Amino acid sequence: MTYAPPVAEPGLILHQAFFWLKNPGCETDRSALIAGLRTLGNIPQVRNLSISVRASTESRDVVDASFDVVETMLFASLEDQRDYQPHPTHLAFIAACEHLWERVVVYDNLIV
Amino acid sequence: MTYAPPVAEPGLILHQAFFWLKNPGCETDRSALIAGLRTLGNIPQVRNLSISVRASTESRDVVDASFDVVETMLFASLEDQRDYQPHPTHLAFIAACEHLWERVVVYDNLIV
Repeated sequence: MTYAPPVAEPGLILHQAFFWLKNPGCETDRSALIAGLRTLGNIPQVRNLSISVRASTESRDVVDASFDVVETMLFASLEDQRDYQPHPTHLAFIAACEHLWERVVVYDNLIV
Repeated sequence: MTYAPPVAEPGLILHQAFFWLKNPGCETDRSALIAGLRTLGNIPQVRNLSISVRASTESRDVVDASFDVVETMLFASLEDQRDYQPHPTHLAFIAACEHLWERVVVYDNLIV
């Protein structure tokens, strides 16, 4: 019996934003959004950052394959997540890229 | 200028299931679901596993704070994700715990 190691240590904050592009089939827009998201890794409060795109898994009732790009971050604390929000680099990303997406949904989790 | 290290290496499959409990305020049900999810870490294809619960971040239009529990897994490949689905431990988890949730949504991502 094995046990898979964690993705992230308990106590960390898992912060994700799911993006739906205005032009879902447009590679240029998707690349521009991904490039913008990468700049967020320069914000001191962001402990870890990965960007991902929808994977081609089997179609099942429970699978939502409607999104385009996901930003996954880890923060050391809720305070760091709060302080990240108004950081100039974060605000600059929103100003530069918000025309690219039609919808964004954010999920905040505590790793247990 | 720093750059945050990744949450997961490019090429890995980020597989997540978001759960909405039938009894969202019930600690017993939430703990039972979390305990069930932990057993999935014994499935050989599951490379990494973390469980998380909704965090109390600020209320904003874009934040969806309606879910209760999230399972976050990493797989080495799409094939491993596929082979995980019919694994007896996965099926046993579903049989034992599906009465606890009202809704589940799965997202499959490729880390880039």
